[in-house]
Order: sequence, then C-alpha cells, then structure tokens
Amino acid sequence: MPAGFRLVCSGCGRTHAPDTLAWRCECGSPLDVEKPLPAEPRFEGRGVWRYRPLLPLLDDRSVVTLGEGSTPTVERDLYGVEALLKLEYLNPTGSFKDRGATVMVSNLKAAGAREIAIDSSGNAGCAVAAYASAAGIRCRVYVPAGAPRAKKMQIALYGAELVEVPGPRSEVGRKLLAELKPGVAYASHMWNPYFIEGLKTIAYEVAERFGAPDAAVLPVGSGGLLLGVHRGFAEAARLGFAERVPRIVAVQAAGYTPVYDALYGPYGAEPPAEPLADGIAIPNPPRLKQVVEAVRESGGGAVVVEDREIAEALKLLARAGLLVEPTSAAAVAGLRKAVEQGLVERGERVLVPLTGSGLKALDKIAGAIGEAPRHLEGGANAAEVGAEAG
Amino acid sequence: MPAGFRLVCSGCGRTHAPDTLAWRCECGSPLDVEKPLPAEPRFEGRGVWRYRPLLPLLDDRSVVTLGEGSTPTVERDLYGVEALLKLEYLNPTGSFKDRGATVMVSNLKAAGAREIAIDSSGNAGCAVAAYASAAGIRCRVYVPAGAPRAKKMQIALYGAELVEVPGPRSEVGRKLLAELKPGVAYASHMWNPYFIEGLKTIAYEVAERFGAPDAAVLPVGSGGLLLGVHRGFAEAARLGFAERVPRIVAVQAAGYTPVYDALYGPYGAEPPAEPLADGIAIPNPPRLKQVVEAVRESGGGAVVVEDREIAEALKLLARAGLLVEPTSAAAVAGLRKAVEQGLVERGERVLVPLTGSGLKALDKIAGAIGEAPRHLEGGANAAEVGAEAG
Repeated sequence: MPAGFRLVCSGCGRTHAPDTLAWRCECGSPLDVEKPLPAEPRFEGRGVWRYRPLLPLLDDRSVVTLGEGSTPTVERDLYGVEALLKLEYLNPTGSFKDRGATVMVSNLKAAGAREIAIDSSGNAGCAVAAYASAAGIRCRVYVPAGAPRAKKMQIALYGAELVEVPGPRSEVGRKLLAELKPGVAYASHMWNPYFIEGLKTIAYEVAERFGAPDAAVLPVGSGGLLLGVHRGFAEAARLGFAERVPRIVAVQAAGYTPVYDALYGPYGAEPPAEPLADGIAIPNPPRLKQVVEAVRESGGGAVVVEDREIAEALKLLARAGLLVEPTSAAAVAGLRKAVEQGLVERGERVLVPLTGSGLKALDKIAGAIGEAPRHLEGGANAAEVGAEAG
Repeated sequence: MPAGFRLVCSGCGRTHAPDTLAWRCECGSPLDVEKPLPAEPRFEGRGVWRYRPLLPLLDDRSVVTLGEGSTPTVERDLYGVEALLKLEYLNPTGSFKDRGATVMVSNLKAAGAREIAIDSSGNAGCAVAAYASAAGIRCRVYVPAGAPRAKKMQIALYGAELVEVPGPRSEVGRKLLAELKPGVAYASHMWNPYFIEGLKTIAYEVAERFGAPDAAVLPVGSGGLLLGVHRGFAEAARLGFAERVPRIVAVQAAGYTPVYDALYGPYGAEPPAEPLADGIAIPNPPRLKQVVEAVRESGGGAVVVEDREIAEALKLLARAGLLVEPTSAAAVAGLRKAVEQGLVERGERVLVPLTGSGLKALDKIAGAIGEAPRHLEGGANAAEVGAEAG
C-alpha cells in the first residue's frame, strides 16, 4: 500500500489500485476505501483537510480546496429535542456535497484525470463542477431536464458542460454511461469511494466540538451522507474522540423509500410527479445494502415524510432565519416524526445537518410555504406584499 | 458606563445612552461606539461572538446568532499578489452583512425594540430580516423596486414585510423615514453604530490566522465594511495581535465615486441606469467623511472600476469555483487596478473579502459574463448548452 490505503469491493472483496479511474468493481458492486486508522492522528487547521490523517489522498500536492467544511452549528430546541443544526448549506457551493467533491476531485487530479462526467439531480453536480473548474479538469454534468433552474445555471457558470436529460432520473445515468468516452472518468457521487470519505468530516467536526450526540437524523437519497456520517462517528469512537456511534435515523420522502421498505416492508406511496424534496428523490441507490446495514448496526431506524410535513418544517426554519432547500427541511420534518415514533427521545441531543441552500430553490420554497412570489414580479404593490408576507 | 461603553456623536462629540433607539445625533451626524479596550481579552469559541470582549453588547442574554463569522479564506495568486480571498458570502444569509446584523439586532432586542425598519439595496435587508425573524422582532424592509428579485424573495421568505419603492435609491430611505411610526426603530446598516462594530470581526479573524496583511482592498458603498475592517485592524494592532494597520484601498464603481472624488477630485462618470455592482451603487453615504479619513490615515487610496472590468473578474472567479455577486467581483477588479496604479505592490499579501453570494444574482452574472441563460429555460438543447458553456 504505497498510498497508505486501498480500494476494496463491497460485494466480492476484491482489491483495486487506489489510482483507478474505474467507478465500480468488475462484479458490479461499489468500492470502498480501506485505510488503517493512525494511532494518534494530529488534526491541524480548519475545514475538511484538518482531518488529512483520516482521509485517503494519493498526492498531497493535488489538494483542490474552496474553503469547504468547518460549517457552523446552531443549537435549537425542536420538538423537545436538543437539536444540533449543522449548517452544511454554508459550504462553498451551497451544500454538503463540497466535502465529498474536494476529496474525490483531489484524487482524480492526482490520478491524472483530465476530463470527468457526473450525473446529478443538482447539488452534487454544482459541487463537482466547481471543484473540477478549480482543478483545471474539464467536466460534463448530466442533469434531469426538470432539475431546479438555479442549480443548472450554477453548473454552467462554473464552466462545466451541462447536459439536460428528459425522462426519469434513471435515464440520466444511463445516457451518461452510453456517451462516456475512453479516458473520461465517471466521477459519481453515488459510486465514487473517495466522495463518501469526505463526508466523514461532518461527524469528526461534531465529535470534536460537541462529543457524540445521541442520534443523527439524516435525509437519505443516494445514502452517501448517511454512510459518511456513520463511518465518521465509528472512526471517531475507535480513536476516542467520540464516546459512541449515535443511532442513525434515515429520513426519506414518500414515494422514494427504499431504506424504509428494506427495514419495515413497503411504505407504498406512489412517486409524486414533482417531488418537493428533489435531492432525495432517488428510487434505487447503488449503496442501499450498505445504508440499511449502517442503520441497523447503529440501532436506529427510518421514517417517511410527506410533502405537507416538509413544507411545514421549511416555513418553521425560514421564520427562524434558516433558509434551506426542501430536501434539508425533510430532515427537520423527519426529526419530528422520529420523536413521535419513539426513535428519538425527548431531551436527547440530536445531529440534524441542514444540507442545501434555499437560495437555489426560492420559487419552490415560496410555493411550498404559501408565499406569493407573483407579488415580487414587476409592479408589485408594496403594501399588499407586506400584508401577505407579514 | 454601566454597559461598559457609550455612544458618541462623530460630528459634535455629544454622548448618548447605549440603549437609545435614536439612529443619529440631534446634530444630524452618525453615532459611534466608544468602548475601552480590555487589557488582555480572551477569545472563545467560533464566529463573530468569539470576540465578545471587543464588541458592544447591552445584555449577554440577548445574543441573536445564526452561525455568522469564521468564514473560510482561500489563498490565490492574483495579478502577482498573494490574495487572501475571505469568503464572506458563506455567511448565513449570503453576505458579510450578517456580522453587522447579529450585533445590531442583539442590541435592539436588549433595548426592547419590538419592531424595526431598514432600507437596503438588498443584502443588508436580507441579513436584518433574518436576524429580526430569529429574534422575534417584526421587521419591515424598504428596497428599491429594481433590487434583484432573489434578494426580495429572500427577505419575504424570512417573514419580513417587503416594501418596494420606485425611483432613485435616495427615495427608499426618504419613504421609510416618512412612514416611520413612533416606537419603531430605524435599524439602518449605514447609520447604526452597532452594525459597524460587528464588521470589525473580519479584521480580527484575518489578524488571528494570518497576521496583518500589507493591504486590504475593499468595495465601498455605504462604507461600513471599510470602517469596520479599519477599526478592527486598528484595535488588533493596539492589542498586539496584528503587527500594523494595512493600507486600505477603496474600490468604487464608475458613476458612484464619492470616496475617489473626495481624495483625488471628480472621477466624472455618469451613474449607469442599471449598475452591475448594485451593492455599491450608493451616491451619498452618510459616513463618507469617516471613510475618507480612514483611507488617508492608513496610507491607502481609491480606485474606480468599470462594468467591463467587473464582468471580467466575475468570470475569472466563477471559473475558479468562486461564484460571487458582481459587487464582490468589483473588489477583485479593484485589486488589479490597485496593482497597475501602484497602490498595491507585486508580492504583497492583500486581504480581498468576497462579500456576497452569486446565488442571489445568477441571471445578472450570466448576462455579464456572456453565458446564455436562455438555453436553460424549458426545452433546452443539451448539446447546444454544452457548446456555449464549454
């Protein structure tokens, strides 16, 4: 292991060179990083790379950083619980995906990638576009044609090529792979093992500042956030800077409930045509098995939230000065449900990351919480706006 | 001084009670905080309130925080200069104004304000709306009717009353004052002395982490940023955690050049109908005299940038993964000009805060840097978008 770590297939156990541009094992399963924990790691500086000794990196000269990590945490009493709201939407491109992108793109750069492609419903595309741009790597981002307009614009403004794909979400990845040219790396936030490694740092930061919470309530789409946070707390516990691994509660949106279904049987809702929490509207995440195992191992569970509940949480947060996208509000709606269903107890301390910025979804938020953005177009009558917004 | 500080008129020197809701002295001049520096202040925690011993606060129980401050700094070589780009746009509402809002709103809360009003071209309105909402204070925000749509939506989503005022910027403040009811505090980011005090923390953070830079290049609209940064470095120097006060270079946009004019004589450009850097399109800042004095005292100067130069800097930043609003890019365009004009020397270390988020100005940015956002509306042809954006 000259790099100090290796890649291991989560399905068949085969090992792979750490500088591979392959995005999965020949057997079809996702790869994982296997890196021995240092005895007494020394953390220095701020942000994701503060935890350099716990992160896989092919070459120290290849780090691509935009100031990700070290996000603020605000403490609020919510539903009788001491919630640690970690403001992941204050990362450089407006979501927690930046933590994954910095580790993935730094390694792709070290491995010599000159062009990459990614499929994303939005935030991961924004993050990878920005880091690729900063690294001087050409980047093509495949998005569903119905992805939020602000996210599509953001991707294009970073200089990435934007490819809009009509049809269902699954078609986006299919088209990417069909068009993938030799030498272009598939830099998938769902498959790439380095991406998840970057997400571990959320847990490290919480553990260093607050110790281990009793539980973590996490929105689950691809499951990368959940796997990263779980792995991060597990490592922090083994190294002694977290007392335990918190119970992990997965939050899914009605219509997209593979984790819930695997744990408790089919939830049974139809996928809505326009899901409010578009960031977690993912029916078949490739790492589903790992996600379900992590939830079980932690002694946690899963809850499903409806659009009405997400909208309520969205308004609660905005009126408290926290403007997040609907997917983030799903976590807060999930916290409420987790308390109601006994997965989280009153008085417990619970990590709830707020994952994505509301600035990318203003119209959607206004629609969901019953504001009237039409008053803001052109010749608005000020008094009327005041009356409606007050 | 039971509060440990007092308010002093910058014009006539008269003192005022620190819990006043008056927004200026009877003589018409702005007020300043006068607070003796502690001998050996102890800084604890993160963010703006890490510097509690150096900030005026009427009541420790009234702090309203949303996780502001402790923003990342990325170091880049720009125009031969070692630039410290401080990512102020990663503050909670997307701009540096949050640092001022947390100190101002905390004191308004302590002083018993139940309703406040502010006039703003956008970012200050967003910040004050969010903190007021978090504090449970009713808030009315007067904006120019032509203010960016995203900022108006953001203000309304926090739950503030939005009042759109047609006509020139000066009309916005006039209408607010004409409609101001007894008992409602005018919480102006331009006039309020607590607001500027919060902005000092930018300098403290830079001084603590990097020491004093050789110069600071700052966009100037109301001048609050410049006054706060100048005061912050001056205090850090007196306390010994900065070696010196850096030379301050004020950056203004053609058409809005009161600082430049006062230093060197009239620049002479007409105000454009739609200024690209809308955040600094302020013709008559109330603290102009103080701003000019601070620049002179620091041994700095002023530069004026044109829209074409701002657009160039905007694209340079976006392609490096830093998506900021045009007003922030004006600072980088100003850095280039400051180097050309000898106000900053090659090899020097220079603080350049990137003040506001590009996510609030996507269409404006796309228009300025020559992207084609029309491709992103509805039935875009993906290949075409790729070709144009690549």
